Amino acid sequence: MRDFSADHRWLSINTATVRRSQGQDLPLPRILDLCAARGIGAVSPWRDQVQAAGLQATARQLRELGLSLSGYCRGGMFPAADAAGLQAAHEDNLRALEEAVTLGAPCLVLVVGGLPGALAGRAAHKDIAGARAQVHEGIARLLEPARAAGMPLAIEPLHPMYAADRACINTLAQALDVCDALDPARSGALGVAVDVYHVWWDPQLQAQIARAGRERLLAFHVCDWLTPTRDLLNDRGMMGDGVIDIPRIRGWVEAQGYAGYSEVEIFSTQDWWLRDAAEVLDTCIARHRSAV
Amino acid sequence: MRDFSADHRWLSINTATVRRSQGQDLPLPRILDLCAARGIGAVSPWRDQVQAAGLQATARQLRELGLSLSGYCRGGMFPAADAAGLQAAHEDNLRALEEAVTLGAPCLVLVVGGLPGALAGRAAHKDIAGARAQVHEGIARLLEPARAAGMPLAIEPLHPMYAADRACINTLAQALDVCDALDPARSGALGVAVDVYHVWWDPQLQAQIARAGRERLLAFHVCDWLTPTRDLLNDRGMMGDGVIDIPRIRGWVEAQGYAGYSEVEIFSTQDWWLRDAAEVLDTCIARHRSAV
Repeated sequence: MRDFSADHRWLSINTATVRRSQGQDLPLPRILDLCAARGIGAVSPWRDQVQAAGLQATARQLRELGLSLSGYCRGGMFPAADAAGLQAAHEDNLRALEEAVTLGAPCLVLVVGGLPGALAGRAAHKDIAGARAQVHEGIARLLEPARAAGMPLAIEPLHPMYAADRACINTLAQALDVCDALDPARSGALGVAVDVYHVWWDPQLQAQIARAGRERLLAFHVCDWLTPTRDLLNDRGMMGDGVIDIPRIRGWVEAQGYAGYSEVEIFSTQDWWLRDAAEVLDTCIARHRSAV
Repeated sequence: MRDFSADHRWLSINTATVRRSQGQDLPLPRILDLCAARGIGAVSPWRDQVQAAGLQATARQLRELGLSLSGYCRGGMFPAADAAGLQAAHEDNLRALEEAVTLGAPCLVLVVGGLPGALAGRAAHKDIAGARAQVHEGIARLLEPARAAGMPLAIEPLHPMYAADRACINTLAQALDVCDALDPARSGALGVAVDVYHVWWDPQLQAQIARAGRERLLAFHVCDWLTPTRDLLNDRGMMGDGVIDIPRIRGWVEAQGYAGYSEVEIFSTQDWWLRDAAEVLDTCIARHRSAV
């Protein structure tokens, strides 16, 4: 297992972590500058932030700053209530693929979606098995364009508390079932993003990480689970402030040969987004060394 | 599958559902009267409510009203930071067993506990595998007294969002692994409580219900998953108001031969606990017929 205590060369910042600074929106160009100024080597930006800053301008700034990407957030959201919705989701995913290529991302992260309409509070139906089938079909359809673009797809299992509205793939086992069905050759075109926040509770975690193996482990995300957790979406903790044994899980991932970035992804309305982004980034660096 | 549309003979009310009425605490004796007045045949009371009302007085009132129990809430909370804590938990569980016997409960529901101290926001450690081992040992130790008392133990897998602080058994598969290890003969002394709120998301749900079989299916709890869910603990929905396909899950349970009560358990700070308990109970009856 790599020693993170002496430097932060393997730290990546998911840009949502400093999406807000002192309660105000922080534009992506400023986030990238703040990261580069701290010797942070990689980021994982969100599509809405890239769109606001401009795709080509962002690609240029990344190059100028020498920043790598650890992923691109995000494609997915496959299920829909009708054929037009499925087609719209596919086309949006094709655009996400192109953006990921332009930005030089190593993978496109897939948050696969849940019951159609549920995110807006009006689920079209209650058939989660049907939604899962649409996810399977949607990934199958996206895989060929992704291969052609040379852009690996990283399915991110989300915590079961998001099964209804954000992602109906909720365990690593489920994600790997899709990988095995669609890419049995383990070509590297399809894999998983392991975010400790989503999977730390899973009694099968170690075994499923081993099942994934090096070819399927495309990204590793960290933050922490707070007790109490005050909000289902936006109360993630800084590494070390919660109950997740992050080094243990990183050890399992690295035992498979994973040697990429450890990406910090924190959504925190009531705490970290209220602080100054510089303080948040400095804390990420410190905790990457001490708690990851 | 039984037809619930014509009557509510198989409806049970978990008394937490009307723990508060119009924002005020509602004493258990009043809850029991309100249930009996509506022809509700069973309840599942909580220990704190029973303690406040008196154990013998509650047993007497239940008899006088002709109310059955669908379970007793709850034993468990096995993990502890030291031997004294483990022993205290065991002794408390022995008292819960006795109370369950006195009240004529068909089973003692076990919410097994998480990381010691996490419920108070100060987890003693991050070793969830260790906590799970303590749960296994705790249930093993409780099983003999439970057999002697003729009181089945029903392990309730809780949603993974409670893994840290309330229960580190988070899937039916995990609960059944414990059952298989400790009661391989399927004697009926050890089984599971299936609460749709906790397990609806699980892609293995149908298969694990079949694995449980009639001998292990000791209780069936219903409410609904709301989108959005505004609080991790106390924002459960009334059946029919959320995204859970309850009849489908009940069908799977009944296909195994389960023919017991369907117990409504709703914690709802912002909605149902603010309403009048009579309205809540009437709604439970209506939704039991239409949405369960």
